[in-house]
Amino acid sequence: MARVVVNVMLKPEILDPQGRAVQGALGRLGLTGVSDVRQGKQFVIDLEGDLDAARSAKLEELAGELLSNPVIEDFTLTVVD
Amino acid sequence: MARVVVNVMLKPEILDPQGRAVQGALGRLGLTGVSDVRQGKQFVIDLEGDLDAARSAKLEELAGELLSNPVIEDFTLTVVD
Repeated sequence: MARVVVNVMLKPEILDPQGRAVQGALGRLGLTGVSDVRQGKQFVIDLEGDLDAARSAKLEELAGELLSNPVIEDFTLTVVD
Repeated sequence: MARVVVNVMLKPEILDPQGRAVQGALGRLGLTGVSDVRQGKQFVIDLEGDLDAARSAKLEELAGELLSNPVIEDFTLTVVD
């Protein structure tokens, strides 16, 4: 069994209104000195069997097409175990 | 400067319809053997100055109250640098 974590974040040049709202709320609730907050998505994917090269390549492809929007988002893919 | 990443995930016993939809889509698009997908949120928080004990405690408190819903979600807090 393999576990893969895909993190999807807005590209740095794209404005993140959700992150901005969280930044404001953290400040109002007493956490000082928050300079930036970005909010993204996380997918934890469990796979049967081993993650061979073909499935790994397919997963990388789908992370860029299905799980993220390449126009405005970047993703990172990490094999956890 | 300190960077903290807070990951928020539905508790394991809570049904995750978004994750289930992604699981189905990955299968239809050619990734075989996906046994489970869970979808969560990720917050990347940049802080000015060092993360001392008081701010760290405040952040932990707010991660559990503002960033996540303790009734249905768990969170993990990681200091990146």
